[in-house]
Amino acid sequence: MKIDRDAPVGVFDSGIGGLTVAREIMRNLPSEKIVYFGDTARVPYGSKSKETIVRYSRQIIHFLKEQQVKAIVIACNTASAFALDTVKAEQDIPVIGVIEAGAKVAASVTRNHRIGVIGTEGTIGSGIHAKYLKKLDPKITVIGRPCPLFVPLAEEGWTHDPVTTQVAERYLEDLKKENIDTLILGCTHYPLLRSTIAQVMGDGVRLVNPAYETALELGRLLKEKDMLSAGTIQEDFPYRFFVSDLADKFTGFANSILPYDVSMTKKIDIEKY
Amino acid sequence: MKIDRDAPVGVFDSGIGGLTVAREIMRNLPSEKIVYFGDTARVPYGSKSKETIVRYSRQIIHFLKEQQVKAIVIACNTASAFALDTVKAEQDIPVIGVIEAGAKVAASVTRNHRIGVIGTEGTIGSGIHAKYLKKLDPKITVIGRPCPLFVPLAEEGWTHDPVTTQVAERYLEDLKKENIDTLILGCTHYPLLRSTIAQVMGDGVRLVNPAYETALELGRLLKEKDMLSAGTIQEDFPYRFFVSDLADKFTGFANSILPYDVSMTKKIDIEKY
Repeated sequence: MKIDRDAPVGVFDSGIGGLTVAREIMRNLPSEKIVYFGDTARVPYGSKSKETIVRYSRQIIHFLKEQQVKAIVIACNTASAFALDTVKAEQDIPVIGVIEAGAKVAASVTRNHRIGVIGTEGTIGSGIHAKYLKKLDPKITVIGRPCPLFVPLAEEGWTHDPVTTQVAERYLEDLKKENIDTLILGCTHYPLLRSTIAQVMGDGVRLVNPAYETALELGRLLKEKDMLSAGTIQEDFPYRFFVSDLADKFTGFANSILPYDVSMTKKIDIEKY
Repeated sequence: MKIDRDAPVGVFDSGIGGLTVAREIMRNLPSEKIVYFGDTARVPYGSKSKETIVRYSRQIIHFLKEQQVKAIVIACNTASAFALDTVKAEQDIPVIGVIEAGAKVAASVTRNHRIGVIGTEGTIGSGIHAKYLKKLDPKITVIGRPCPLFVPLAEEGWTHDPVTTQVAERYLEDLKKENIDTLILGCTHYPLLRSTIAQVMGDGVRLVNPAYETALELGRLLKEKDMLSAGTIQEDFPYRFFVSDLADKFTGFANSILPYDVSMTKKIDIEKY
């Protein structure tokens, strides 16, 4: 296969949360083009079955490959948990997910082998982080805590707010008693609440942001396969955004968290793929 | 068409919020059987397009008609806003929605013709309450305010909580300055936060609970069409609950708000309808 180094990287999520991953790729791999797809018509994925999530992921990958992407980042915890292994085996281009990248770093930085994970009820209930972490190091103990209000608080833009601090204090109270030294932000929205979570957890706990780690992992992988962009892109804004529903709301959120003005988001019919 | 008066009433919602409507039907029409469907796999509806919501509503009505329902209550504001007119025209049994019922009462109780509406972003953005209210009385001014955190707060069970009071104070601040005398609880979860909302709004504002008004409207409609149950039902618990995903969580919530023990909730594949 001939590799086009200047082809875009495909990034997808169940909705808007994965933009935190796209943002880290923009920051850390500024030469790379991105095609982002947010499945806003079928969000959330957290309450759906594995079979459904695999089908959705295949449709999205089909769409992204039509956009000639050279690699795919699953910027969604649920899709990474349920579909990564299956779709990776079916593709001839690299596919990476956010859970693996976060777990790898958490396992490498913990000193006392006690790692906390926060996420949606679906992600925490699946126990997927524990599966990866224990494969990396069986001595690790994983303590999970769902934080259902964090996503709507982040989407309201209340990222630095006394209400959010009180909610975080309530959610993280038990976790603070568990003597963890590392905490994985196991939902793509949570990096937006990072400073509040850090303040509540205190200095003794290292926060792992899988969005950041995934961008670094993508860079390593592209380099290893000699697929890094040559950096000769002429476009001012080499990023394209697609959604399956309500493009306007997506655009508003994208503009609030990305350092660019996302003026055009295109709605596509993902069920056709 | 031969009417079976003892056939159940079909009630549906995007998830669990519509249980507040089912609860009012149980209280006010205790002779009626109910088949409830909560579309927990595809919740929330608020962020989805009209086209998508009409398609979902048709699938659910198809399912409910298989259960031989004699009438259908759309216990979801988004589906009432987007799909009621379309599906009503397609059906040979009565179909009512929560928005019409709430608007009628609000129009009749307001003295100063200034009515507030709170709901999800989808409901408020649609302007559907204003459409109904102005049809009833063109002198009415409608002031809407989306309150996106109220649903997750209600689902967390934080219905009487200092965090919820603070969120309500922030959301309702502008509305309090608008000199409204009537406020429609335009989302099925909001009756669960009724006492907090009432406390924040103060004595001068009458709260309209469309769940209660819909139950009364259903009673009037069934009576008018000579379709009220003859009251000869022998079952101890004439209510059946269906969901499209994660039946356990639904059952827990149902048990917390209904005056019955909902021991069995059945999961069905709504995409097949």
